[in-house]
Amino acid sequence: MTARLEAWQRRCAASAPLSFIDVNLRGAGQVMFQNHPLTGALFIAAIAWGSVEAGAVPVLVGGLLGLLSATLCAMWLRVDAEALAAGMYGYNGFLVGLALPTFLEAAPLLWVYVVLGGAVSVVITLGTANVARTWRVAALTFPFVLTTWILLLAAAAFAGLGGEPPPFADETEVLAPALTDPLDLGTFVVGVLFSVSQVFLKANVVSALLFLAGLALASPAAAGFALGGAVLAVLTAHLFGAESGLVSAGLLGFSPVLTAVALGTVFYRPGWRVAAYAALGTVFTVVSQAALNTAFAPLGIPALTAPFVLCAWLFLLPQQHLQGSEDAGR
Amino acid sequence: MTARLEAWQRRCAASAPLSFIDVNLRGAGQVMFQNHPLTGALFIAAIAWGSVEAGAVPVLVGGLLGLLSATLCAMWLRVDAEALAAGMYGYNGFLVGLALPTFLEAAPLLWVYVVLGGAVSVVITLGTANVARTWRVAALTFPFVLTTWILLLAAAAFAGLGGEPPPFADETEVLAPALTDPLDLGTFVVGVLFSVSQVFLKANVVSALLFLAGLALASPAAAGFALGGAVLAVLTAHLFGAESGLVSAGLLGFSPVLTAVALGTVFYRPGWRVAAYAALGTVFTVVSQAALNTAFAPLGIPALTAPFVLCAWLFLLPQQHLQGSEDAGR
Amino acid sequence: MTARLEAWQRRCAASAPLSFIDVNLRGAGQVMFQNHPLTGALFIAAIAWGSVEAGAVPVLVGGLLGLLSATLCAMWLRVDAEALAAGMYGYNGFLVGLALPTFLEAAPLLWVYVVLGGAVSVVITLGTANVARTWRVAALTFPFVLTTWILLLAAAAFAGLGGEPPPFADETEVLAPALTDPLDLGTFVVGVLFSVSQVFLKANVVSALLFLAGLALASPAAAGFALGGAVLAVLTAHLFGAESGLVSAGLLGFSPVLTAVALGTVFYRPGWRVAAYAALGTVFTVVSQAALNTAFAPLGIPALTAPFVLCAWLFLLPQQHLQGSEDAGR
Repeated sequence: MTARLEAWQRRCAASAPLSFIDVNLRGAGQVMFQNHPLTGALFIAAIAWGSVEAGAVPVLVGGLLGLLSATLCAMWLRVDAEALAAGMYGYNGFLVGLALPTFLEAAPLLWVYVVLGGAVSVVITLGTANVARTWRVAALTFPFVLTTWILLLAAAAFAGLGGEPPPFADETEVLAPALTDPLDLGTFVVGVLFSVSQVFLKANVVSALLFLAGLALASPAAAGFALGGAVLAVLTAHLFGAESGLVSAGLLGFSPVLTAVALGTVFYRPGWRVAAYAALGTVFTVVSQAALNTAFAPLGIPALTAPFVLCAWLFLLPQQHLQGSEDAGR
Repeated sequence: MTARLEAWQRRCAASAPLSFIDVNLRGAGQVMFQNHPLTGALFIAAIAWGSVEAGAVPVLVGGLLGLLSATLCAMWLRVDAEALAAGMYGYNGFLVGLALPTFLEAAPLLWVYVVLGGAVSVVITLGTANVARTWRVAALTFPFVLTTWILLLAAAAFAGLGGEPPPFADETEVLAPALTDPLDLGTFVVGVLFSVSQVFLKANVVSALLFLAGLALASPAAAGFALGGAVLAVLTAHLFGAESGLVSAGLLGFSPVLTAVALGTVFYRPGWRVAAYAALGTVFTVVSQAALNTAFAPLGIPALTAPFVLCAWLFLLPQQHLQGSEDAGR
Repeated sequence: MTARLEAWQRRCAASAPLSFIDVNLRGAGQVMFQNHPLTGALFIAAIAWGSVEAGAVPVLVGGLLGLLSATLCAMWLRVDAEALAAGMYGYNGFLVGLALPTFLEAAPLLWVYVVLGGAVSVVITLGTANVARTWRVAALTFPFVLTTWILLLAAAAFAGLGGEPPPFADETEVLAPALTDPLDLGTFVVGVLFSVSQVFLKANVVSALLFLAGLALASPAAAGFALGGAVLAVLTAHLFGAESGLVSAGLLGFSPVLTAVALGTVFYRPGWRVAAYAALGTVFTVVSQAALNTAFAPLGIPALTAPFVLCAWLFLLPQQHLQGSEDAGR
């Protein structure tokens, strides 16, 4: 694998078009923190499968367009070459491009919106990274969340983008929670897998398996934490009595999956204390997802991965303490 | 008094259980910035009295459970020993534990919620302190506010925690302000005392006197500023024509009380200029409390001490200017 | 012109009352980033004209009172003398004083509110500048926005200030977007000019021309970017299908005008790359204005210049990248 990757990197170094493709693939992989072109390719394959299956081809097109727009804007802004090559300026635009056609109708202006959102996501990534760096944390998917919120809220005021007013108070019934059905294994497994695929806004088992394969390829630990985080999220949501349909659709699990991977493998060195800390963060991300769903209901916009960003920042900011104690032995 | 305190500290140093109790008592005392075990004990006594009187024993149990959970989590995270011993990691969990049973029904899962909230409040305290330190301000009760907001908003989506949807727009009538009744002294004094006791979410005269006694024990100036802040808050609220019932219940005064103590005695050296500055901050905290009450009405969650956190930060961030001029004489 | 300015400055240096007037005039000029007394005088003349024409004299009175309150509070707080002399502590109070009588009825307590808001705006300016300085950005009009939001939200709970509850969900119809009328030149020009005058909350052609004259006097480039930003904003709003009435009243253009001037002339050195970057920021400010209008509709408060503050910060935070590339030639 490593030999093939090196061969690919040599070919990219010699070819500007191949190098451009490589940057974009790594940009897709960074949605789940992986700097690996094949991981990105598997992620895009998973989205292609899920989009076609759901009859939602504009979502795939939007994702690719947002990714391209972000990469080109980053090149125009002459960002740091190393971070660019690692895909750090692509993943937010990719997510913006997936989200906009998911929540808005495919009007002609939608594509203007996707290109604009992809470009702006790079500016916001640069600024967020500058601020977050002050306390040694990363921008995460905050640029995606902020850009998409602004574009979706504005769509309510733009006839060319649907122009449907938000529900404000009328959403109340959607929030009515129901006591969970007795857990049956099939629903449980589907809920877990959808929690993984909803990271990319998809409810699809095959897509979920492709996402996990892409993760495992670059980092088996990341795949393990993703799966473990999804299981913990579904159990927590059922324990608290969240609406069964919401849990089974993976809609309370995708942010916790990201928190589990981020806290468990990317930013902390693994270990039992870190695993327990990541579990606490994952459980609190489920609660935060439910909280932000409630808070945003009147505005008619989705919380996206804001619960992940919030909880990952909250649990990463005290970083030195946990690592300090790890250093101290035990 | 000092001799007794020293004797107590010697006994604590020799006994792990006593030391653990001492940390928790100081954690209770830090709700009003006091690092003194007897102050904490009087605060807990005040809450016990108020809870039993109001037939709300779960509030007392919740407060103690949240405090314990926070202290144990802080010990597990091996936080800074000195700050731990001063109670800096206890007060937010204590407040979370008081707030949850005040606003949610005492279902079995409520206690899971309190333990979770107490633990997470420590993580948020560590992170907030890291960020706030950049500009030489403290975390204040922001961790309590954020933790409790998230848990309360999420409760609307969790059948195991009540699962009542928020009112969204239906709260409108509660906001209708009424021109104040002619001020009579009895109502005025009760409003002032309740403004003090509502810092701990209680409307109780005996509790208020116990709180003031606990404060005076550790810092007579703090007790003075608390009382002065409460008087100023009630007068300001009446001047602007806030709803009489709200003012008399102390619900527009508890955040201003905290601002007055914080600006007047804890973070600035006292003096006439500081007192005038603290008065401006206290008046603006009354306005901010009214503003946040309005803003949060659709979501059905209380503003808690967010107006205090906001105004204390706003008035503490320019710190060097006021102190610089104090240094310059006059 | 420069000779006359120097003569004026000599006279100010010799006279405390003249110097005080100079500080206030420059405070007015800083609303659009200009440190020039005659610019400030023209801005005040524009507001006087617009207020009298609209039969809204309290707006003019409020602006002057807020400006005075801010300047006096800054002097009392002994802020940095150089920044004070440049008007950096006046413009937020000036805007608070213009906004409050625009959105609240002229009750006696309104003037207490204006004085309070002017004074608090200085405290918030000091704190915001301290925080923003960490990443080399300025406070912009954030202190005005935050102060005014708090005062307006609180007014709903204060009978002495109107005490009208916010609309919450009832505002929905206002948001209904309409496909734009065919662009006719007259409406277009008025929309562009009102986009400039709405920076000061005015819809008035003569005022707009006076504002542009004041700008051109201190900085022809700033006047150019203001006009260009207004044209771009009106075109963008029409392209997306925003409500025609809103666009023609300048209500989607005032924040973009400020973004264009800020990005184009004040904080970056001009050039084609900077102009393109400023254009992207200006377009995204239009979208952000529509987004925040939607988000704030339930609360019944205006977004004010928050879209400008948000987008200017987002586009200024990556500062070094664009400037670094400028330095690199081309």
